Amino acid sequence: MKRLGILGGMGPKPTIKLFQTIVDMTEAHNDQENIHIIIDNNTKIPDRTSFLLDNTKEDPLPILKESAKRLEEAGADIIVMPCNTAHYYYEEIKNSINISFLNMIEETAIYIKKRYPDLKKIGLLATDGTIKMGIYDKMFSKYGIGVINPCKNDQRYIYDLIYNIKENKEQKSLDGVYVTMEKLEKEGAEIFIAGCTEVSVALDKFDIEGKFIDPMEVLARRSIEFVGAKLKK
Amino acid sequence: MKRLGILGGMGPKPTIKLFQTIVDMTEAHNDQENIHIIIDNNTKIPDRTSFLLDNTKEDPLPILKESAKRLEEAGADIIVMPCNTAHYYYEEIKNSINISFLNMIEETAIYIKKRYPDLKKIGLLATDGTIKMGIYDKMFSKYGIGVINPCKNDQRYIYDLIYNIKENKEQKSLDGVYVTMEKLEKEGAEIFIAGCTEVSVALDKFDIEGKFIDPMEVLARRSIEFVGAKLKK
Repeated sequence: MKRLGILGGMGPKPTIKLFQTIVDMTEAHNDQENIHIIIDNNTKIPDRTSFLLDNTKEDPLPILKESAKRLEEAGADIIVMPCNTAHYYYEEIKNSINISFLNMIEETAIYIKKRYPDLKKIGLLATDGTIKMGIYDKMFSKYGIGVINPCKNDQRYIYDLIYNIKENKEQKSLDGVYVTMEKLEKEGAEIFIAGCTEVSVALDKFDIEGKFIDPMEVLARRSIEFVGAKLKK
Repeated sequence: MKRLGILGGMGPKPTIKLFQTIVDMTEAHNDQENIHIIIDNNTKIPDRTSFLLDNTKEDPLPILKESAKRLEEAGADIIVMPCNTAHYYYEEIKNSINISFLNMIEETAIYIKKRYPDLKKIGLLATDGTIKMGIYDKMFSKYGIGVINPCKNDQRYIYDLIYNIKENKEQKSLDGVYVTMEKLEKEGAEIFIAGCTEVSVALDKFDIEGKFIDPMEVLARRSIEFVGAKLKK
């Protein structure tokens, strides 16, 4: 069985969720049948969205590369990164290491094509950084899947949802989130993507209703397959 | 803020619980105020109890040392180990590295002396390996705290509780666990110690009632203090 590296800490809660999801999805009857996972919960990586919206802020790339290298040197055979926005740097990080690096965005596109071959459009709930850089738009267009983003006004509800999780703040209402989702549906979204790992955390925490695909779950499943562990049926 | 290393994987579920507890107990308003944690979820460490009860089985010590070294080389300033039984090897692991290593058993004894200065006796729910090697008895006697272990017959209920968690098996009843706890109370136990990290997981999973001290929680709190992060009030 290969060793999995998790380039985490963006933030810590999604890192826990990915770890938990992998363990829950692994068919194991003792410690040893579980995956050897090395996690760098590197909370010191500067905020990705802050820099992508304002490049006078601290650049996260050097520390992202440092973290990837740490995992490689610690013996990981493959890395995964539970942060959608950080996938903007996917190629640069990949080129800085000599081990495999699963692309969460691409794995999600592949999953959708396989599971929902007729699906035309998804509604994206993501950070302002992910939207601005077109991280989903670019990858999904290669697979013929259209991406609909919330309008600027509605996007602030999604921003708040994400940063309330990050900042340990209370989420007073989900009304804005549901309004945003309804509008995306009207514009043709057939399914929603939890396109920020804090949105994945929020789905569980607030029991948000709706037809969602969670890229972190796709990533967990693919990680188990890749390292050669047994996936639960 | 210092970097924390978690020598984990014994098993993965307690490792997740320690990670989650640390994040939950940290006062943080963004990713960066959280602790940089490097986790070696090394599920390939051979079963500690198996070896301590039968030394023809595979010795976990070499791989425990390897894991501690991995964390040191990855940049951890201090390590913690969420496995009570593995604390049998505490001194040997500590001597093999050049960074600090918090002793969960000793930190628990210190916590009890501070919080419950008049407490005389605790009831221990732990693995057969932990009991056989007197891991709690030796440390707690230094602090004047008596340790009461279940009788041989009752210990199998605790063994089953622990290995059902490890083996992802159904726990059909908690009757045996409660009978064991009642008997320990009659023998003078004033409080119970969740002396195996799978027991800590079971406390949450099955809502086991009783006055418990969870060494993993003590360890989480001490880890936050040690690295210089802010503890939630």
